[in-house]
Amino acid sequence: MSLNTFGHLFRVTTWGESHGPALGCTVDGCPPGVRLSEADIQPWLDKRKPGTSKFTTQRKEPDEVKILSGVFEGVTTGTSIQLMIENTDQRSKDYGQIAQQFRPGHADVTYHLKYGVRDHRGGGRSSARETAARVAAGGVARAVLAALVPDLKINGYMVQMGVKPIDRARFEASAIAENPFWCPDPVMAEEWAEYLDALRMDHNSVGAVIEVEATGVPAGLGAPLYGKLDADLAAAMMSINAVKGVEIGAGMAAAALTGVENADEMSLGPNGLEFGSNHAGGILGGISSGQPVVCRFAVKPTSSILTPRASVNTAGEAVEVVTKGRHDPCVGIRAVPVGEAMMACVLLDHLLLDRAQTGGMRGQIGSAR
Amino acid sequence: MSLNTFGHLFRVTTWGESHGPALGCTVDGCPPGVRLSEADIQPWLDKRKPGTSKFTTQRKEPDEVKILSGVFEGVTTGTSIQLMIENTDQRSKDYGQIAQQFRPGHADVTYHLKYGVRDHRGGGRSSARETAARVAAGGVARAVLAALVPDLKINGYMVQMGVKPIDRARFEASAIAENPFWCPDPVMAEEWAEYLDALRMDHNSVGAVIEVEATGVPAGLGAPLYGKLDADLAAAMMSINAVKGVEIGAGMAAAALTGVENADEMSLGPNGLEFGSNHAGGILGGISSGQPVVCRFAVKPTSSILTPRASVNTAGEAVEVVTKGRHDPCVGIRAVPVGEAMMACVLLDHLLLDRAQTGGMRGQIGSAR
Amino acid sequence: MSLNTFGHLFRVTTWGESHGPALGCTVDGCPPGVRLSEADIQPWLDKRKPGTSKFTTQRKEPDEVKILSGVFEGVTTGTSIQLMIENTDQRSKDYGQIAQQFRPGHADVTYHLKYGVRDHRGGGRSSARETAARVAAGGVARAVLAALVPDLKINGYMVQMGVKPIDRARFEASAIAENPFWCPDPVMAEEWAEYLDALRMDHNSVGAVIEVEATGVPAGLGAPLYGKLDADLAAAMMSINAVKGVEIGAGMAAAALTGVENADEMSLGPNGLEFGSNHAGGILGGISSGQPVVCRFAVKPTSSILTPRASVNTAGEAVEVVTKGRHDPCVGIRAVPVGEAMMACVLLDHLLLDRAQTGGMRGQIGSAR
Amino acid sequence: MSLNTFGHLFRVTTWGESHGPALGCTVDGCPPGVRLSEADIQPWLDKRKPGTSKFTTQRKEPDEVKILSGVFEGVTTGTSIQLMIENTDQRSKDYGQIAQQFRPGHADVTYHLKYGVRDHRGGGRSSARETAARVAAGGVARAVLAALVPDLKINGYMVQMGVKPIDRARFEASAIAENPFWCPDPVMAEEWAEYLDALRMDHNSVGAVIEVEATGVPAGLGAPLYGKLDADLAAAMMSINAVKGVEIGAGMAAAALTGVENADEMSLGPNGLEFGSNHAGGILGGISSGQPVVCRFAVKPTSSILTPRASVNTAGEAVEVVTKGRHDPCVGIRAVPVGEAMMACVLLDHLLLDRAQTGGMRGQIGSAR
Repeated sequence: MSLNTFGHLFRVTTWGESHGPALGCTVDGCPPGVRLSEADIQPWLDKRKPGTSKFTTQRKEPDEVKILSGVFEGVTTGTSIQLMIENTDQRSKDYGQIAQQFRPGHADVTYHLKYGVRDHRGGGRSSARETAARVAAGGVARAVLAALVPDLKINGYMVQMGVKPIDRARFEASAIAENPFWCPDPVMAEEWAEYLDALRMDHNSVGAVIEVEATGVPAGLGAPLYGKLDADLAAAMMSINAVKGVEIGAGMAAAALTGVENADEMSLGPNGLEFGSNHAGGILGGISSGQPVVCRFAVKPTSSILTPRASVNTAGEAVEVVTKGRHDPCVGIRAVPVGEAMMACVLLDHLLLDRAQTGGMRGQIGSAR
Repeated sequence: MSLNTFGHLFRVTTWGESHGPALGCTVDGCPPGVRLSEADIQPWLDKRKPGTSKFTTQRKEPDEVKILSGVFEGVTTGTSIQLMIENTDQRSKDYGQIAQQFRPGHADVTYHLKYGVRDHRGGGRSSARETAARVAAGGVARAVLAALVPDLKINGYMVQMGVKPIDRARFEASAIAENPFWCPDPVMAEEWAEYLDALRMDHNSVGAVIEVEATGVPAGLGAPLYGKLDADLAAAMMSINAVKGVEIGAGMAAAALTGVENADEMSLGPNGLEFGSNHAGGILGGISSGQPVVCRFAVKPTSSILTPRASVNTAGEAVEVVTKGRHDPCVGIRAVPVGEAMMACVLLDHLLLDRAQTGGMRGQIGSAR
Repeated sequence: MSLNTFGHLFRVTTWGESHGPALGCTVDGCPPGVRLSEADIQPWLDKRKPGTSKFTTQRKEPDEVKILSGVFEGVTTGTSIQLMIENTDQRSKDYGQIAQQFRPGHADVTYHLKYGVRDHRGGGRSSARETAARVAAGGVARAVLAALVPDLKINGYMVQMGVKPIDRARFEASAIAENPFWCPDPVMAEEWAEYLDALRMDHNSVGAVIEVEATGVPAGLGAPLYGKLDADLAAAMMSINAVKGVEIGAGMAAAALTGVENADEMSLGPNGLEFGSNHAGGILGGISSGQPVVCRFAVKPTSSILTPRASVNTAGEAVEVVTKGRHDPCVGIRAVPVGEAMMACVLLDHLLLDRAQTGGMRGQIGSAR
Repeated sequence: MSLNTFGHLFRVTTWGESHGPALGCTVDGCPPGVRLSEADIQPWLDKRKPGTSKFTTQRKEPDEVKILSGVFEGVTTGTSIQLMIENTDQRSKDYGQIAQQFRPGHADVTYHLKYGVRDHRGGGRSSARETAARVAAGGVARAVLAALVPDLKINGYMVQMGVKPIDRARFEASAIAENPFWCPDPVMAEEWAEYLDALRMDHNSVGAVIEVEATGVPAGLGAPLYGKLDADLAAAMMSINAVKGVEIGAGMAAAALTGVENADEMSLGPNGLEFGSNHAGGILGGISSGQPVVCRFAVKPTSSILTPRASVNTAGEAVEVVTKGRHDPCVGIRAVPVGEAMMACVLLDHLLLDRAQTGGMRGQIGSAR
């Protein structure tokens, strides 16, 4: 089974290990005739790039993407697009010990149990470096969405670091890009800086919650059942390294609501259907309603830490694991552009699916359409 | 795209509407030579069946499953298995008004926007009745799992109703089947009875959180990336009607943990690998570790309620929607066997995937294997 | 893997055995808003129905199709369509011997080797009866094609029976429905009647070649590589029971052509692009050119014959197999509507795929467009 | 849809254009623990390499494959394997005219009609150069097959060039590698040399028939219906550039056989099941029987020829097309290793599918098993 592929019609197959010569992805099913060059993709990779602040890994990677196929004279041709990012800073010697030991909370042990062999260098295939390929694919998806649905916008930001959630009353969209945490609450951003610094000094790490919102999503994307828009978003976000929970709209908190509270009341306004609230996160019955699509996911703390943890080695002996190397104290920070990329890919995928099945025709409400 | 299908190798395609003549599913990819009859499937459907207490819809459906293909002389033949459940109690007249009005929080409006046409009777395809087909498929998956991995057990239960979570200190596995809520906390079960009765009298409904735990899951099921065991579980659970959030292990709470806290420390015991805790929910890097697989999901409150809510009709006029008909005040109750069924299908699917790729070979740890 | 499913976006999953209670298929991905009832499907089933002449099996099956889901008030809703055909004439006792013996040239032995178990009654899943489900699905595809591409026409006919090919110079489209062989050459039709009668009396059977032509196929359907229109047609036709060869356009004879001969020269006529010949069979580089799509396939002789053939039984003992029961002396006759159905499904599938990727936009040639 | 991917479980996604910087493929689903290096793949590419005789294109390409992922310390890890071949001899100026004109019999015109844009250089994505990626993937499949089923052997050869078929009575397996045509009939090989030389001098080209035989294929691979081994082989071979027909066993000639002739009689020999003939080509009911799997396909003549042919240009004007550049006079020659590669990929794919569903268990015949 193509377990390194995601998407139904806009299909992305990623490949590559942390310390191999390169990594990348094949993007298949891209519509033809869309303007695309490396310059459309690189900014998203730069956003994710390590080594930009003391809060992310000090590994230096230019993460320069090359388009090897599928684009001719600056335009997509409809054939498969190969995106490649060469690995340049492969300080493999940092990782010698990992070859024999299993880091608690890390994929080391399950790879070993499943495959009997693994590329241990920097986590190999399980490294967060793989997400660079996703961000590159997301760059292609964004370019296509910009051509097909110009009003659609995707924004990701961090809403909680460790025990410190943002204050929604202080939400400023303009603040997001102005701190190293993609934090929309400028007060909390400063608090997080101190909090994370202390954790880092203490040889510890911490989790986070990321929210990704898409506005301008046309109504009608998705399907009632197993190809639900929300089911595909859940799979997409849960497939990101270290994610342990995914929520749509009210999310887990929906359990505490009554039906009266949860009902997003509707009316017909001058611009069409309007909603009094958005507990649904823009998705009803697996299909987009036209409201903003809101998805959140929790990223667990980095499992590679300098504090010793009890474990075993391949020989079955008890060991104390201390992970050197260059690791993010809060891997959630760099998950923000990854979540955005997954949102872009899923929305484009469903846009294409919808074109296929309905031809983009829509049921009317009133005369406003 | 096969949007009514789930699974990679153990594939289930469901069909049917709430008030059509029947509903069911095709189960493809089932291993041959497994003993199977209606009697292996019916008990799971009975568990989900409506009308068994005042806390579930009073619609009376025998939900009798028939096997139409794929089984010969009581044994699966390896060909596709068709399971059919006839609809008998179709009191369609209750639903006349729904044809023109959109219930807030319901799929009515998005079906209309996407397809321009919908079978409004009882929610049609979006009805929770569709989950009967999932439970039937889950019955097949359980029969196969029982033959291939006898130690594997799957248990679902409700851990929160509305604002009332269970007390984990009072968890009794034996209590689950002894109350109408599949509640493992017998004290809370009584509290829920009063709580839900009051909500029902008040023409209201409420959400819930379900937990499904699988023990005896072999290590090595899953895949590092898009076909991760947790990503597939997330999609499976989010694809159930009314689900708004999915968690694995520590779930959303993982965000608040530090790396030191989150590390599930390992040692080698007499029975192989042992873990000091299970924040990972039995899945590391998308692959099962041998620990119990723990998955939770939040079900929103039933959107069909007797309290009037503001909405519009197909003509675009403002209306007050009051939904008559027979609806569950807490649809989460009947989601318990559905969650179990999805867990069974996903685990079997990954067991087959693993047989294909690795042939079931495993990396050793120590001499204990 | 979903090995009982075909199609990318218009997906058909068939189920059922020859002597089980019923057989049918789930059609997923059907566009919404298309008028559909049993009356749109039944005529195609009647065309394939056994027992209509002495040249087909005398098994009497009404082959009445029922739509169980996906259609509401005579219109497709976009949800999965379940089609069921009940088996009524199951004279199973005819088949007792087959349970232990393997017919030469038949799937009996490979089913036994693969699954260790099989429903031997009437061939079970390997029976040509399964093709009834394909014809039913084809009826849905035709209804959708009629709505989306009214000019598209699909015609199947037999061009060779045994050693007797038709004379293309005598081709009369109107003759096809006027003989029991779907033969477009009225002279040859009479010859075949005598030929087949003699073979039947001689306890023998014979092969055939079927041609299916689709006219009015829009240019641009297909894809350059593995999802080529011709590759999908080849798989679709080869998946029909007893088919051993598939050809597009010139087919195997293309090997004997030179490049000068094979070039289908082009010019721009009043109705757009025109071709001087159609060696390509309407497909270039996996994509339709606007010319008629022409596909042929060879059906081997029925392997169930009354002439004794040497074989073994399950105990490994040498046996002489004589197959009683009611079998077609030339199973190719009933393959004609099956080939048409597969053509309809594949073309619709690619029409939907094309809508998804290109939105139906087309490159222009000249100003004629 | 992933139209650049083939395979169910052993999945190959190819990418790249004839004159882009590189081409290659991602191989997903490869079992772990198999020894693999570039040296295992390169010999197959060398077999297909252009410029090795005057009968193939004079384009010089080293076709050196690089493994970029999925292999660690000489062993497959179970993660996706990226294979890249850089294009070095890109004499694009030869192709200027093709940008505006459509070669008769070539994909130029259908790409234009479908996508509105195409990389015309050397045929872009439709170039036979793409098959290098298939051969590379086939090299991986062969390495895995060698590890899992050591007795399985795959041999391809040409059995017809233009109007000249081989004489089966002169078949010598050892002759195949000793002439530039992979011809098993040494007498005919010499005849072909003269024949093709004359055609080449005459600015013409010619078609061919290739046969690929696999011996040592275990019984039980395949599935009764849409995932039939023969249906997958048909799709795989038809997906190769310029292929117009595919046959299994007796192929199209099966139409002329009677049931008595076509029956491959069976007996139980010291080595298990034996067959008196192999009209079935090793596949019954879509499942391998243990006999040699025999597949043939017809390759049409190269459409890029120096003889002028009537066509149109993008402006719709009538033109005489003369294709310069370096083209194979009989592209079928280089299709031999491509057919072998597809056979290897399909067989491995079904081996993995069979492991998944049946776990490799088999029904017994007699006590011989």
